[in-house]
Amino acid sequence: MFISFEGIEGSGKSTQVHKLAQLFSRRQIPHVVTREPGGTRLGQLVRRILLDSQHREMESLTELLLYAADRAQHVAQVIRPALAAGKWIICDRFADATIAYQGFGRGQNMDLIHELNRMATQGVWPELTLLLDCPVEVGLHRARQRIDRLAPADRQDRFEQQSQSFHQKVRNGYLQLAAAEPERFMVLDATKDPDLLHEEIVALLAPHVS
Amino acid sequence: MFISFEGIEGSGKSTQVHKLAQLFSRRQIPHVVTREPGGTRLGQLVRRILLDSQHREMESLTELLLYAADRAQHVAQVIRPALAAGKWIICDRFADATIAYQGFGRGQNMDLIHELNRMATQGVWPELTLLLDCPVEVGLHRARQRIDRLAPADRQDRFEQQSQSFHQKVRNGYLQLAAAEPERFMVLDATKDPDLLHEEIVALLAPHVS
Repeated sequence: MFISFEGIEGSGKSTQVHKLAQLFSRRQIPHVVTREPGGTRLGQLVRRILLDSQHREMESLTELLLYAADRAQHVAQVIRPALAAGKWIICDRFADATIAYQGFGRGQNMDLIHELNRMATQGVWPELTLLLDCPVEVGLHRARQRIDRLAPADRQDRFEQQSQSFHQKVRNGYLQLAAAEPERFMVLDATKDPDLLHEEIVALLAPHVS
Repeated sequence: MFISFEGIEGSGKSTQVHKLAQLFSRRQIPHVVTREPGGTRLGQLVRRILLDSQHREMESLTELLLYAADRAQHVAQVIRPALAAGKWIICDRFADATIAYQGFGRGQNMDLIHELNRMATQGVWPELTLLLDCPVEVGLHRARQRIDRLAPADRQDRFEQQSQSFHQKVRNGYLQLAAAEPERFMVLDATKDPDLLHEEIVALLAPHVS
């Protein structure tokens, strides 16, 4: 089963991904933990280009094509083989993130995004997407605390530096995606205590995990 | 005017690009010399990923998307502005190269290649393409001499290491492209002495260069 986690910065995705992976490990459930961008060695090089805040000159089309390249490699090299081997996949962000960030957030051409997602995913899509939803102020506050713990040179992530209104558009975009595909998306309240949230996710997955 | 140079490895493109650029400089004709992949700062990072022979795991779709990303950035950041400023563009490889190498050479999906070329070029295409044509043995012999002058660590270019039959397919592909668009392509005999070839190119451009 292919599960993706989505949400704005500071929504607690990484924490929940980590907790779920630990649970799977304890229960000896075969699984792969991965992420986008950067789920492969090649993708990490692409991720470095994408997230480098020095690239102010990056064209939006270039950005979309780089995300698609990362995704194509990720699907072929990690996700497809893991599915074929009968493993669970826990993925921190997937193709929905491009729709939410580049499409809703930045207002880039939605048709082009869908076209590139079709190319890159080749029809492989999560069966369950957990959207960790929280108000933008809550997410950005958490993200900022995390950034403050980093050395200045590591604070350059282009996305975390965006304005609050951008993140608001991303959040709304995610909620629209969830409303359009209620059978795939599960919207969770990410302001909750992380342990409670984890329990909620475990309960949700219980029917699928033996 | 946007001129591209195309041809297999060792066809002498770089030499001819250099000679033409020198002529333009002497005659004070405003021009930009550029190349693909790697015509921009961002593109150079993408080029490094593309040409690194360690990336054996690279999917053909990933490769096509990375070329498209490089091209999109190149067109927007270099080619369009130069054309808008009324400059000549001398470009060492452009979108035809992807059709010849990935399409004809590697047999990748031609529709996908055309689709990505359409996206990335956004309709900007050379007005004249000089195809430096030579037998594969001649090209590879020259390319090998060049490689032998390099330090071992620099000899890793993924493309130059391909088999002779691959380069034959690329050459044939280029010739097919030239036959399909005779008004844009000019096929030149790249076995000729470089200075004679240069004079031929200058004569060919004479009507356009005041």
